Amino acid sequence: MKNIFLILLTIIISLTAYGQNERPCPQPAPETKEAFKLGMAGFTFVALDIDKTLETLKQLDIHYLCIKDFHLPYNSADEQIKAFKSKLQENKVVGYAVGPINMKTEQEVDSSFAYAQRVGVKLLVGVPEYELLPYVEKKVKEYDIKLAIHLHGPDKPIYPDAEDAWEHVKNMDPRMGICLDIGHDTRNGKDMVEDLKKYQSRIFDIHLKDVTGNTKLGYPAVVGRGIHDIPAFVRMLRKVKYSGVVSLEYEKDRNNPFMGIAESIGYFRGVVAATKK
Amino acid sequence: MKNIFLILLTIIISLTAYGQNERPCPQPAPETKEAFKLGMAGFTFVALDIDKTLETLKQLDIHYLCIKDFHLPYNSADEQIKAFKSKLQENKVVGYAVGPINMKTEQEVDSSFAYAQRVGVKLLVGVPEYELLPYVEKKVKEYDIKLAIHLHGPDKPIYPDAEDAWEHVKNMDPRMGICLDIGHDTRNGKDMVEDLKKYQSRIFDIHLKDVTGNTKLGYPAVVGRGIHDIPAFVRMLRKVKYSGVVSLEYEKDRNNPFMGIAESIGYFRGVVAATKK
Repeated sequence: MKNIFLILLTIIISLTAYGQNERPCPQPAPETKEAFKLGMAGFTFVALDIDKTLETLKQLDIHYLCIKDFHLPYNSADEQIKAFKSKLQENKVVGYAVGPINMKTEQEVDSSFAYAQRVGVKLLVGVPEYELLPYVEKKVKEYDIKLAIHLHGPDKPIYPDAEDAWEHVKNMDPRMGICLDIGHDTRNGKDMVEDLKKYQSRIFDIHLKDVTGNTKLGYPAVVGRGIHDIPAFVRMLRKVKYSGVVSLEYEKDRNNPFMGIAESIGYFRGVVAATKK
Repeated sequence: MKNIFLILLTIIISLTAYGQNERPCPQPAPETKEAFKLGMAGFTFVALDIDKTLETLKQLDIHYLCIKDFHLPYNSADEQIKAFKSKLQENKVVGYAVGPINMKTEQEVDSSFAYAQRVGVKLLVGVPEYELLPYVEKKVKEYDIKLAIHLHGPDKPIYPDAEDAWEHVKNMDPRMGICLDIGHDTRNGKDMVEDLKKYQSRIFDIHLKDVTGNTKLGYPAVVGRGIHDIPAFVRMLRKVKYSGVVSLEYEKDRNNPFMGIAESIGYFRGVVAATKK
């Protein structure tokens, strides 16, 4: 009788072991217990469709996506938006914002906020012309949707860095803020860690990236292979209690970004784990 | 005249910027200034050929490979070995060891050491039957090639963990040592960090991996997604001044391991960077 029990026990353990040996993929990343979340800027997948995007997020165990128009066009019908959102939900992905969206006219401001509302997000990452800011502020109040101005380094004439965006919004509605693109901030000669500290009250979104230099010549690198001090940045994220998404915007190898994305995500997770103690 | 200089300067800067914008890949990983090196266990590529292996190492900026026989068979002719080594060299990869190699007879011990010598490495990762150890020790002395016994957790009857390998070699030639497979050590209920400390004098190679549990049921995970405390392990690597290779042995998704490998490598690099301060 005792033998039968032992045999049964062995069978049960073996079956369990067999189940375990199927090596389910993905193995979820551990809960970090951080206020901030790790996400993905839609722009990373500029050359890839939403299915490939979601497959990649699944492999990486990433659950926050900033939606770009090449995946969900501005003129999408309501049923297209609904289908898109269902697809995200099936893949356990939250579309937490839309953008970046350029806004050059009042009409574009109108349609951008209407789009954000139809998509159902409370955050719009955008680049409005300077003179449109008072009009944008009206829309922010009207829709109760936050604006996060995307900065773009020395490449574009407006919003080169966080300081410039801050100067333009600091006296406006508190929902007028910044998407701190740490790559472009660095490329404009600024210190991303200091800027996160200085402008924390208005930083609503972050583009995580690495760059090879602190001038216009600096170009995108795998996170950890550039000049960014990511450990210092993560420590500051904690210090300022940033509670938004840190979204990887990976701009290299657009047609085959997978290895670079994965190494970048791994690097960030490694830094988060190692800076806890 | 001054204007012409300015125009010329602008052109030169633009051309330079253009060159930079080509975004060369790979961007080398920064020099870590660590005594240990990050490498790859050939077994990671069990389902892939050497060309795909080297392409992947290039993307990851990894330059140390432990050579497996499925990439370079034991019975390779000298010209095959020469061609293989040239290929590694062209890809800036050092084949720093061979193995793991199972050795069940004296003949297999003979051929394994002869193979290691023909490949030109000074380290053989191997699994000799217990009773062959005195014969292996003779070969270690004869060839002046170190042996690193690969431990294999509760799956195999011999060398389940570092303690077992240590007990078998501690009174033998100091070139008789251990390949600390941290995944299998953990799966046998041991503490990989403590074992690295205890057996440091005989640890000649390390297999980096993560696992989901500290029993036989624990299965392989992307590094950072399992139960291993990699920051503690990296701190101990520094403390014991380990100067060998830490080789990723990634055992998931054999036909498509790329994303998992890249995330694992990124994680390790992130931990190395973040534990420096």
